[in-house]
Amino acid sequence: MHRLSRFFGSRKAQEQANDTARDAPGNRISGETNGAVNGATNSHGPARSQTNGASPESNVDVLIIGAGPAGLMAAAWMAHCGIKTRIIDKRNAKIFSGQADGLQCRSLEIFDSLGFGDRAWKEANHMIEICMWNPGQDGVIRRSDRIPDTIVGLSRFQQIVLHQGRIERFFLDNIKKHSNDSIRVERAVLPASLKIDEAILDREDAYPVTVELQHLTEEESTPKQQISGSKVADGLFRSSLNQEDDEEILIEHGSRAGEREILRAKYVLGCDGARSWTRRQLGYELQGEATDFIWGVMDIIPITDFPDIRMRCAIHSAENGSLMVIPRENKLVRLYIQLKEVAPDASGRADRSKITPDLIFGAAKKILQPYKLDYEYCDWWTAYQIGQRVGTDFSSHNRVFLAGDAVHTHSPKAGQGMNVSMQDTFNLGWKIALVLKGIARPEILATYAKERRQVAQDLIDFDHRFSRLFSGRPAKDVMDAEGVSMEEFKDAFLKGNMFASGLSVKYGPSELIATDPSSQHLATGLEIGMRFNSFKVLNQADARPWHFQERLKADGRFRVVLFAGNILEAAQKKRVETFCAALQSGDSFIKRATAPGASIDSVIEVLTIHSSKRTETELLRDFPEILHPFDKHSGWNYEKVFVDDDSYHEGYGNAYKNYGVDKDRGCVVAVRPDQYVAWIGEVDDFAGLQQYFEGCLQLNGENYRVNGNEC
Amino acid sequence: MHRLSRFFGSRKAQEQANDTARDAPGNRISGETNGAVNGATNSHGPARSQTNGASPESNVDVLIIGAGPAGLMAAAWMAHCGIKTRIIDKRNAKIFSGQADGLQCRSLEIFDSLGFGDRAWKEANHMIEICMWNPGQDGVIRRSDRIPDTIVGLSRFQQIVLHQGRIERFFLDNIKKHSNDSIRVERAVLPASLKIDEAILDREDAYPVTVELQHLTEEESTPKQQISGSKVADGLFRSSLNQEDDEEILIEHGSRAGEREILRAKYVLGCDGARSWTRRQLGYELQGEATDFIWGVMDIIPITDFPDIRMRCAIHSAENGSLMVIPRENKLVRLYIQLKEVAPDASGRADRSKITPDLIFGAAKKILQPYKLDYEYCDWWTAYQIGQRVGTDFSSHNRVFLAGDAVHTHSPKAGQGMNVSMQDTFNLGWKIALVLKGIARPEILATYAKERRQVAQDLIDFDHRFSRLFSGRPAKDVMDAEGVSMEEFKDAFLKGNMFASGLSVKYGPSELIATDPSSQHLATGLEIGMRFNSFKVLNQADARPWHFQERLKADGRFRVVLFAGNILEAAQKKRVETFCAALQSGDSFIKRATAPGASIDSVIEVLTIHSSKRTETELLRDFPEILHPFDKHSGWNYEKVFVDDDSYHEGYGNAYKNYGVDKDRGCVVAVRPDQYVAWIGEVDDFAGLQQYFEGCLQLNGENYRVNGNEC
Repeated sequence: MHRLSRFFGSRKAQEQANDTARDAPGNRISGETNGAVNGATNSHGPARSQTNGASPESNVDVLIIGAGPAGLMAAAWMAHCGIKTRIIDKRNAKIFSGQADGLQCRSLEIFDSLGFGDRAWKEANHMIEICMWNPGQDGVIRRSDRIPDTIVGLSRFQQIVLHQGRIERFFLDNIKKHSNDSIRVERAVLPASLKIDEAILDREDAYPVTVELQHLTEEESTPKQQISGSKVADGLFRSSLNQEDDEEILIEHGSRAGEREILRAKYVLGCDGARSWTRRQLGYELQGEATDFIWGVMDIIPITDFPDIRMRCAIHSAENGSLMVIPRENKLVRLYIQLKEVAPDASGRADRSKITPDLIFGAAKKILQPYKLDYEYCDWWTAYQIGQRVGTDFSSHNRVFLAGDAVHTHSPKAGQGMNVSMQDTFNLGWKIALVLKGIARPEILATYAKERRQVAQDLIDFDHRFSRLFSGRPAKDVMDAEGVSMEEFKDAFLKGNMFASGLSVKYGPSELIATDPSSQHLATGLEIGMRFNSFKVLNQADARPWHFQERLKADGRFRVVLFAGNILEAAQKKRVETFCAALQSGDSFIKRATAPGASIDSVIEVLTIHSSKRTETELLRDFPEILHPFDKHSGWNYEKVFVDDDSYHEGYGNAYKNYGVDKDRGCVVAVRPDQYVAWIGEVDDFAGLQQYFEGCLQLNGENYRVNGNEC
Repeated sequence: MHRLSRFFGSRKAQEQANDTARDAPGNRISGETNGAVNGATNSHGPARSQTNGASPESNVDVLIIGAGPAGLMAAAWMAHCGIKTRIIDKRNAKIFSGQADGLQCRSLEIFDSLGFGDRAWKEANHMIEICMWNPGQDGVIRRSDRIPDTIVGLSRFQQIVLHQGRIERFFLDNIKKHSNDSIRVERAVLPASLKIDEAILDREDAYPVTVELQHLTEEESTPKQQISGSKVADGLFRSSLNQEDDEEILIEHGSRAGEREILRAKYVLGCDGARSWTRRQLGYELQGEATDFIWGVMDIIPITDFPDIRMRCAIHSAENGSLMVIPRENKLVRLYIQLKEVAPDASGRADRSKITPDLIFGAAKKILQPYKLDYEYCDWWTAYQIGQRVGTDFSSHNRVFLAGDAVHTHSPKAGQGMNVSMQDTFNLGWKIALVLKGIARPEILATYAKERRQVAQDLIDFDHRFSRLFSGRPAKDVMDAEGVSMEEFKDAFLKGNMFASGLSVKYGPSELIATDPSSQHLATGLEIGMRFNSFKVLNQADARPWHFQERLKADGRFRVVLFAGNILEAAQKKRVETFCAALQSGDSFIKRATAPGASIDSVIEVLTIHSSKRTETELLRDFPEILHPFDKHSGWNYEKVFVDDDSYHEGYGNAYKNYGVDKDRGCVVAVRPDQYVAWIGEVDDFAGLQQYFEGCLQLNGENYRVNGNEC
């Protein structure tokens, strides 16, 4: 890989370039490594047994290959759910510069459910407005439109931009905290072989996937990175702007360098990028095409009189190509620059030797005329050829899974890549964890490929359409059929904004999503298969306002949200009491899902939102016990009953109206651990709810493999 | 002090108890310490010279004695301003349980200006509503009123409750970050003597205060603390609920234990609590009285059917005394319990041997009848006798200052103590830093005592009135002259809420606060002498909404806020241009305050809020250069011009209306580094503004002692 690094700075762009150019050098590092073996122990890995003279061997529930955003998200789930996990990465440090940086609303909601949304929100640059610049009749660019970058009212978050290295830092801190430091990224470790024992796939206690691991030497695992400076000629360097991240402990070489070991896993996740080793081991491919469009990318501190340099801008010049401006943190601006002077040859390859920072920056200056553009500081640069591909398969036997760039590659300009990759494993991680704990049926694992392959395909389609419109020359007039209509472009942008938020994802019917849509009318603002939207409600016991989504933490628990309606009305109270009595009975899904002795909310948590006046209701008087369970050590639970009422300081969330739920009769909603709406029914339809959980959970009440059964 | 610790858990309560009982045992620890001397170096302190066989000697700009909230706030200022500082504390670890915990709106605003308001906001329990409980005609308590805990619309924050140990953690992290780890709390260090050399007080380069320090052994510096458990009999223990705080590095004993050293300082801050060693060295006293009211305090996880246990409650029982409920984080509730059975004897002392957790809890159960109250887990308990005292003097020669409990003690129930203490040094720290840097005139140091003594006196008056009403028996009817009227109590609570927010503080005229109030009408929502209130405005360059106060960071800079009015109107634009031309001239206060070669915003930052439409204005076209200064390395500054306009996602701040500023003509406001409104004038009144800064800053343009002159 090193021979390309002089021209392609980021690993991702590098891998895409390798891919598109179809000259992948193969897994060279692995071929060159000395496979020396010894029995030295590593404090990061679990205890291992060692057979005579052979590599040490050990078992683990989950092995994650690749510690980029997709791999780290998977590890975060395992940490939050207490699953024995190892995560390896061939590089010896996390990334420093460049790479993906746009964060969707949905990614921020997910970060918040893990506990670090606030860190991203605080450090990031917030993108508020998109400005469209197009040539006028005189051929000179001028601002033609302004639109909000995030559709108003869609989420409590808006799209932001933050360096991927910081996001990896947040994940590492979160994983450390929630795993009690037991899950650590093992860097400079490369997988060497992968085998699935099909004979034992059906045995729940078996470890059917065997992976040989190789511990690299420092030289083998170090990417070429240098301290960045002014107008550097090498695209690979360490940013000097991220000063806060000096905590990263690089792996100490020497102890295990050169060693091999055998690891047997119940599940393996290949989150190892566009040139995924895991994917190649399985013999799967990415399908799709490279386009003719070649783009350069630069992160610079611009010195310019262009008025919208701190806005997100889509600029079509008359003849010189297109430019996208993405303002970032630390005064940086990312420029995506169309390189019209570099075209692929007959074989579809671009001549990389021509691509230099000067060439890229020269193209940017031309597009931005008559405005002046200069810089002293460049943080990172690269170039890429747009290629849109989707993986043929997402899993093997539902034991080895692929996620992230391993199953979809596309243009980075839409700011989707990191988001969709993280959301792949946000979809997958809890499913594996709950199956491992004996809580969920193994059949739910098949929903991963079904749910995420559709998202990947939608992404590629979106990217295809968007790239074509953005890379095309603006039409001179309505008769200019070869040019791109700027109206059409704006229209695509507006429509794309919904997709780009990550909130248009809708999972289809399965074991995990109700197949009968007839109850959708009970909660018109909570679409079955889509994420649970958030409005403010008040805690009944202390009057504190919460965005309801804040109460749907990523702790591996399903949730039943009881819209209790007007609890002060006698008939409605009776309905709620009947529902709660059914919950309390020994046969109920919640009792059967919970291990003996475990707290009743450890697998499925019941949250209540009622619509009576807060000051006229009282938690202990008006709500059945199971809605605020009693604990003999800590008394009543005060954190589960909420009210749709006005707050003193934060307005009125109007939750019933916004969720489209009848204020008198209410309804019941089942929510997956990843916040997707799974089932909706009447308060009287306990049977339907029971049936939903019988379809996805193991309600045997005894088949527990983990103490306490709690995530 | 140890002999009291069995009965009085918190240092503060302990010290108050000592004080009120007038049997202070003196500074025993110092008397018992072995004064061995050697020349070993300490990596935490600066390099020292050592004279023959004597104690090592060194100089420091600022010595802070005491690392509680007041001392840490002072250290934070020094870290943010780059001042050479040492901070010592006699204890060998920060506190674990109990202590002060209520945080005012104003304290949260201050934390936010330092950079950690979000951490407190996230972890704390938010108190939303106060419920008043009083006896009915039948003598049984019932809820008589609900009022919001924080007055609506007062601040962007509301009052919260969080354990003092966490707040100290936030300070320690913040100080570490902003001082590049050069300011560390040196624990287990005791001051032994203090001397002021009056002959050199006027010399700016002199170190007139000499303090002898003594490094304690482990035994000397360890308070008795144990892991807490259920129904423990000892009030001093470490909470088992704060799991996240395992990072604290305790001082390593052995290296310097038993050593003495001589430290010469330019300024010394005594933040060493109610029994302040520094105060006693200066011969100053606390003046005031102890009352007859004795209260117990317990932090428990309650098991109860009392309906408002998660609300702040003020409960007056008919005959059994009063109780205050303060819901906290981690399911804890703090109870302040009036102990009617323990009365002071003729000498004014309470018999401490009678005070046990069982006695305190028994009193609470009686007050709360007919509701049941029990607990399994107690985190901390103590008892105290209310005493209200204010220091006779706040400083000696404006070289040694006293702050926090060293100059005011009072009842803890109003949740004011930690806040007022931190705000003492938030007032003082930047003044010392700017004088040390040669930016401000030394005369401004006298404003500390003037400004803060008034606050201390107001606090004691408030506490006196509140304690009397809360400790008194409720009146049975209007004829019951000895009882306390519950109407009067509610009224006091409502009025007290404004005081308790910390936002009613108004500093009087001085070198730092304009003496002429005639311009107040130009900004009726920004009262001269009070803190700069916050409303949302948009960044002109990127449309991002900000609470304006977020732009008033605690970095030691004064600010000039230019309300530019309608910048698109020709006459107004002319006025603004004239103002900016005056700013640009070589004689202007901003040029003269700034060191040659330093950035123009390094001492005084100019921030602009205009009232034209955002989309009709452009930063580079419509605003003079000094409002968005150009830097040859990083281009134009995009972070200083704001607009009072509607946002996409966060509503309309209506800043001009809320600040009471004319939308056409605007005005100019000078703001102190601690966010207090210092001066208001017309846009044409450059001379008045110049005069203000001439009164407090050293505008000689050359007398700089620090490189770059920037905080």
